[in-house]
Amino acid sequence: MNAPASTVEELTTQRDRAQQDHAALVARGLKLDLTRGKPSPRQLDLADDLVDLQGPLTSAAGTDLRNYGGLQGLPELRAIFSDELQVPVEQLLAAGNSSLELMHDALVFAQLGALPGAQRRWVDEPEIAFLCPVPGYDRHFALCERFGIKMIQVPMTPDGPDMDVVERLVAEDPKVKGIWCVPKYSNPDGTVYSDETVRRLAAMPTAAPDFRIFWDNAYAVHHLTDEAAEIADLLALCAEHGNADRAFVFGSTSKITFAGGGVAFFGSSPANIEWWLAATAKRSIGPDKINQLRHVRFLRDAEGLREHMRKHAALIRPKFDAVDKILTAELDGTGLASWTKPAGGYFISLQVPEGCARAVVAKAKEAGIALTPAGATHPYGDDPTDSVIRIAPTYPDQAELEEAITGLTTCVRLVGTEKLLADRQS
Amino acid sequence: MNAPASTVEELTTQRDRAQQDHAALVARGLKLDLTRGKPSPRQLDLADDLVDLQGPLTSAAGTDLRNYGGLQGLPELRAIFSDELQVPVEQLLAAGNSSLELMHDALVFAQLGALPGAQRRWVDEPEIAFLCPVPGYDRHFALCERFGIKMIQVPMTPDGPDMDVVERLVAEDPKVKGIWCVPKYSNPDGTVYSDETVRRLAAMPTAAPDFRIFWDNAYAVHHLTDEAAEIADLLALCAEHGNADRAFVFGSTSKITFAGGGVAFFGSSPANIEWWLAATAKRSIGPDKINQLRHVRFLRDAEGLREHMRKHAALIRPKFDAVDKILTAELDGTGLASWTKPAGGYFISLQVPEGCARAVVAKAKEAGIALTPAGATHPYGDDPTDSVIRIAPTYPDQAELEEAITGLTTCVRLVGTEKLLADRQS
Repeated sequence: MNAPASTVEELTTQRDRAQQDHAALVARGLKLDLTRGKPSPRQLDLADDLVDLQGPLTSAAGTDLRNYGGLQGLPELRAIFSDELQVPVEQLLAAGNSSLELMHDALVFAQLGALPGAQRRWVDEPEIAFLCPVPGYDRHFALCERFGIKMIQVPMTPDGPDMDVVERLVAEDPKVKGIWCVPKYSNPDGTVYSDETVRRLAAMPTAAPDFRIFWDNAYAVHHLTDEAAEIADLLALCAEHGNADRAFVFGSTSKITFAGGGVAFFGSSPANIEWWLAATAKRSIGPDKINQLRHVRFLRDAEGLREHMRKHAALIRPKFDAVDKILTAELDGTGLASWTKPAGGYFISLQVPEGCARAVVAKAKEAGIALTPAGATHPYGDDPTDSVIRIAPTYPDQAELEEAITGLTTCVRLVGTEKLLADRQS
Repeated sequence: MNAPASTVEELTTQRDRAQQDHAALVARGLKLDLTRGKPSPRQLDLADDLVDLQGPLTSAAGTDLRNYGGLQGLPELRAIFSDELQVPVEQLLAAGNSSLELMHDALVFAQLGALPGAQRRWVDEPEIAFLCPVPGYDRHFALCERFGIKMIQVPMTPDGPDMDVVERLVAEDPKVKGIWCVPKYSNPDGTVYSDETVRRLAAMPTAAPDFRIFWDNAYAVHHLTDEAAEIADLLALCAEHGNADRAFVFGSTSKITFAGGGVAFFGSSPANIEWWLAATAKRSIGPDKINQLRHVRFLRDAEGLREHMRKHAALIRPKFDAVDKILTAELDGTGLASWTKPAGGYFISLQVPEGCARAVVAKAKEAGIALTPAGATHPYGDDPTDSVIRIAPTYPDQAELEEAITGLTTCVRLVGTEKLLADRQS
């Protein structure tokens, strides 16, 4: 059990030890990478049978899947994911290999063609804004930044975004057109939205008639334990509260089969699906249905999907456990850090003292340990508290991961005690 | 040998015979489809080994192709297509399954982010326009229509678009931002652009600093004979004439391997490629590289690609020959029709007397023969002469095709003689 240093002398001793440890760490010349939420090669191995496509290249209905057509995607694949994504098959589309593409395209289609319920295209609005629960996912923020969409931060709570703040902002400001949500095992802090949060999102009055919830259910089936988190059914709740067209649901198999060779999904209300298909019909003569067929033959059904995800959990849970164990051993009780203990998803969020996150990442970099840039969890890469570090434990192998996290704790001790000392001396 | 009817009596006899033939045709209750340029199942069979991916799922450079990354696409696949698409490998990107998507996205990126050389984003221009050589490809026109891009028709000549018209329009009007081109075996009339046309496109002064040629080289390797048409190198000519950023080159394997499960390509100048990658980097974490690997293993190299295309030609040339033979037997010398004899590509363009195309398509429909709607070869679906009918001979089997074309000639005879009679009597 560690204890917080209380005197300047104790702090100085701790700082000196941390400096020595860091120098030793740098001297080792490591090259470790905790930056991105990528599946490890062993996880990808789990789906290697995907490439071994047997049987006729036709759908259950007899369609030749090699040819053009089928803009909605293969019905039998949509059926496998319908329950887990909480979207009826007929409102769920299967597309290419990236849900990020679909989120991008949703923003594009809304900018260049009026959404159901919209008064005009978003490019014809003087300004539009999105609510960004923080900490959040940097690629969501990058899309807003690219399109000049103003980002308004909303704090996360253990139940999801702070709904008092959300409700107030959407009620008063018609330029607020959307909100980014990763409702299950959120990126980066693993939060699962409470039923009440989902209900309030579905029910809240919005000043914008074309307000949309970008529901990035990236980790719908990515449980770390046998206890699968469940979230409320946003699409159904929106319909129930008279806001049927409010939800855009996204998902993908990127962290189920092959990260770069999977299938992405889009689900929404009938009116939104019609709007989406009208836009995509001009863009494409259909997705790669052969790859969708591969996924059907490989995953088989919803139970096959769940079984496959248990194999992922068996590989990555020891990594999450190791991170927690090392952080606990090295930092628990020091007052220098707290961190999340997610039950699913891809990330652990490490909270260090205010003003220290950038310095910790820099110190880690000196030691050859690459971390996601501090601030990436916030719009414009700017975490105003400079305190959040995202840890992505899945990609490195177990030994490398443990080495990297141990090194990281050295950096936290060094930067944290230096900060405490500076605070005392100022 | 047919001869044109010259007297009202002869015409009436011809019309009566055509009416009887058409009634007999309708009575047969056919169900034949000549609408779209789809490969036939036998053509798709040629690529069935594509699904049998053997060997490690890594690139030549050792990258794990299952994971995220590799936004530019697999270098070894780009190398196979570099020569035929006339784009250096480092300026050629390999993407998803549809070049139409890439054309759509090019229009989107130019609307929402300023092109190299542009003064502003296209959405911030009061109006923009594209030149549309006619007859042309309906899906190009549909993209312009969707985005409110004004379409200006330019007549096709046997050497490509009428360059006197093109040069005048682009020189005088800064709102003209682009031109659609299918430079080899054009859709629908099979024209191969002359070297002089390509040179003039590359060299012409344009009022718009951000003018782009959308070079849809859809049929780059789709020869029907052993004599492969070659076109001048647009990208090199643009650079040579000081307009390096003028060309956007598109291509795909949709009519090489699987129409719905292939790979698409985008090639351009270094500045445009940088612009494109900056835009796509926000949209995606990379294309499906496993499918690109499949294409590498299946096609092997540029010679493998050419060999594969000879197998396609062996299947579809008899179809093009049959269309020409039937049209010649039934319509040559009647003065009722002329048609193209393409040396590659996917279409035959049938020219009927002015004001007759819609009626011919309607009469064919009565007989259960589906044709691309008359007018589809023109912007807004409006062929002002109402005289162009696009025939897509590849998809039906040989017997069905011959039956459909024979039926079509009956419709041409019927509508054409009715028109001639009406002209005499008015």
